[in-house]
Amino acid sequence: MNINQELILALDAMGGTKAPQVVVEGAKLALERYPNLKFLFFGDEKQLNPLLKEDKKLSSASIIRHTDIIVNDEMKPSAALRVGRKSSMALAIQAVAEGEALGVISGGNTGAYMALSKILLKTVKGISRPAIASYLPTERGGETVMLDLGANVASDEFNLIEFAIMGSIFATDVLGCQNPSVGLLNVGEEDLKGSSVLRCAADYLKKYPGINFYGFIEGNDISKGTVDVVVTDGFTGNVALKTLEGTARLIRSFLKDGFSGSLMGKIGYFFALPTLKHVFQRMNPSRYNGAIFLGLNGIAVKSHGSTDALGFSNAVSVAVDMLSHGFKSQIETNMEDVKTFLASSESEAKTQEEN
Amino acid sequence: MNINQELILALDAMGGTKAPQVVVEGAKLALERYPNLKFLFFGDEKQLNPLLKEDKKLSSASIIRHTDIIVNDEMKPSAALRVGRKSSMALAIQAVAEGEALGVISGGNTGAYMALSKILLKTVKGISRPAIASYLPTERGGETVMLDLGANVASDEFNLIEFAIMGSIFATDVLGCQNPSVGLLNVGEEDLKGSSVLRCAADYLKKYPGINFYGFIEGNDISKGTVDVVVTDGFTGNVALKTLEGTARLIRSFLKDGFSGSLMGKIGYFFALPTLKHVFQRMNPSRYNGAIFLGLNGIAVKSHGSTDALGFSNAVSVAVDMLSHGFKSQIETNMEDVKTFLASSESEAKTQEEN
Repeated sequence: MNINQELILALDAMGGTKAPQVVVEGAKLALERYPNLKFLFFGDEKQLNPLLKEDKKLSSASIIRHTDIIVNDEMKPSAALRVGRKSSMALAIQAVAEGEALGVISGGNTGAYMALSKILLKTVKGISRPAIASYLPTERGGETVMLDLGANVASDEFNLIEFAIMGSIFATDVLGCQNPSVGLLNVGEEDLKGSSVLRCAADYLKKYPGINFYGFIEGNDISKGTVDVVVTDGFTGNVALKTLEGTARLIRSFLKDGFSGSLMGKIGYFFALPTLKHVFQRMNPSRYNGAIFLGLNGIAVKSHGSTDALGFSNAVSVAVDMLSHGFKSQIETNMEDVKTFLASSESEAKTQEEN
Repeated sequence: MNINQELILALDAMGGTKAPQVVVEGAKLALERYPNLKFLFFGDEKQLNPLLKEDKKLSSASIIRHTDIIVNDEMKPSAALRVGRKSSMALAIQAVAEGEALGVISGGNTGAYMALSKILLKTVKGISRPAIASYLPTERGGETVMLDLGANVASDEFNLIEFAIMGSIFATDVLGCQNPSVGLLNVGEEDLKGSSVLRCAADYLKKYPGINFYGFIEGNDISKGTVDVVVTDGFTGNVALKTLEGTARLIRSFLKDGFSGSLMGKIGYFFALPTLKHVFQRMNPSRYNGAIFLGLNGIAVKSHGSTDALGFSNAVSVAVDMLSHGFKSQIETNMEDVKTFLASSESEAKTQEEN
């Protein structure tokens, strides 16, 4: 895909706490970055029309598709599938499924978004389970991709291999890593080193030449940046991500308490404020970039629900990066290689057994 | 157990990076706190003798049991079981098993310590699997107990119930919680709400009157302090704890970078330093208190390997708290109640099926 050709993106204009304002403003910022973008806005035209009219450039690059139906944050995925098929979220995804748009961005309900995307976009050929990925800051500088963050509750060894491949391609295309290293999240003690699923996945990844496999890593390696891609099942990934967010929040609150506790602290706070702000912004890039659904027939990016216009525009940028690198076809090619490799591993194992 | 009677504790004098100095100094501090303590020091008498001689009070409350053998940090649990039976760690545990001491404290290799403790102390009647617990700081103030942190890789619903009971008793006895609330760590999305093991454990805990069950919680609830006791399997608990530690380290490093980056930052750092120090000390009580092995026939506390004398003395205090509340007999009584409850639940379910 040529980045200079026209790229049409579908936007769920009603997803997120500050929608549709933030979505429109975010699109405007993204259009400044990529002048070849075109937008399909799905949502309430009464709200969207006046917002779009404010900017001539944006309005001439945009089409509004009206719907009154919104998937709210409280809706369960199963309910979204039943009653949300004509919602702004579902119609935006549908536009990608039908080839009208090349990618979709929504700041709405993550569970509903994943459920609708799975049904409407379906998984890429060769991938059995899509995954939710995000990238996190690290001590060594740069970022690490982590997946799955909760698309699946349990994962077998083949799912983990799929995650490793999708994560590697993402790290290369979006983060610009060369030959990204991949680690499997596990526990520390040697004798307890994880389940048979983890050991089996590690055995395959060690042998498979298409992945730069580092080996097992532990929870503290995520923030250390030991690897470029952290692979784990959706349950563990979700707990780890939320624990990380909770810890950042706790430290922030402790610092606030500490600085307000004494005169020295208050003076310190005045001088320390710019640093503190910068640090906590660095801590939460997901708030600015969102999560990405990998393994679907179409690019689907989840913007953080409470993000601002800049954050939404960054989510749009992630979609553009994935499009311009041909993310989907790379996955397909890689999964064909993996299948050949797995089949040859199996027949090798059989031959060894027979001898 | 009366806290005024003589309490004999076994100390692995050679465990931890600054052993035996820190162990001896820690024992000295603990003795000031609890004058009725007596210590059995297991380790190299050539090193221990001069250290103990420095303090008359301590030396008259102490006996040295010599051994040259040390379990080092690199030793796998299986190796410790094979070659470490005469080590300072094993002999200290053995002293509890034989009734010579009431509890053991070690700052050595956690995996080896757990493996040796399981073999030598065995599990409390009614408990099928011991767990590793620790307590963590929270936003609401106070602390939350989390278990299992890695004693087991996988846990079934009955293990989780055992953890809930042991965690509740610990929160009551050591942290002074009244009727502590218990949460089961899970993922956020409704439709994905965890494995059948988690749902089954939740069903039992909801009905069992001996536990103040809050329900499912998510990773960010750990630091928020939503519950007094966080129950999870050893794999997830280990990943969550290490992710939390890694995040704290990352923020610390970002703050360091930030403050050294500009003149304003450097001035800020000067004023902010006391607050920052205090916050990062608050963040890591485990460094000062250690982890606790729950469910064994005897108190076994793991002091942090790199702790100082105050940290080691705090680990001793935890052991004293558990002893003075009769931790073991409380577990036994509770587990009998649980068994009665589970049996009646089962027969109830059967009756319902038959009707």
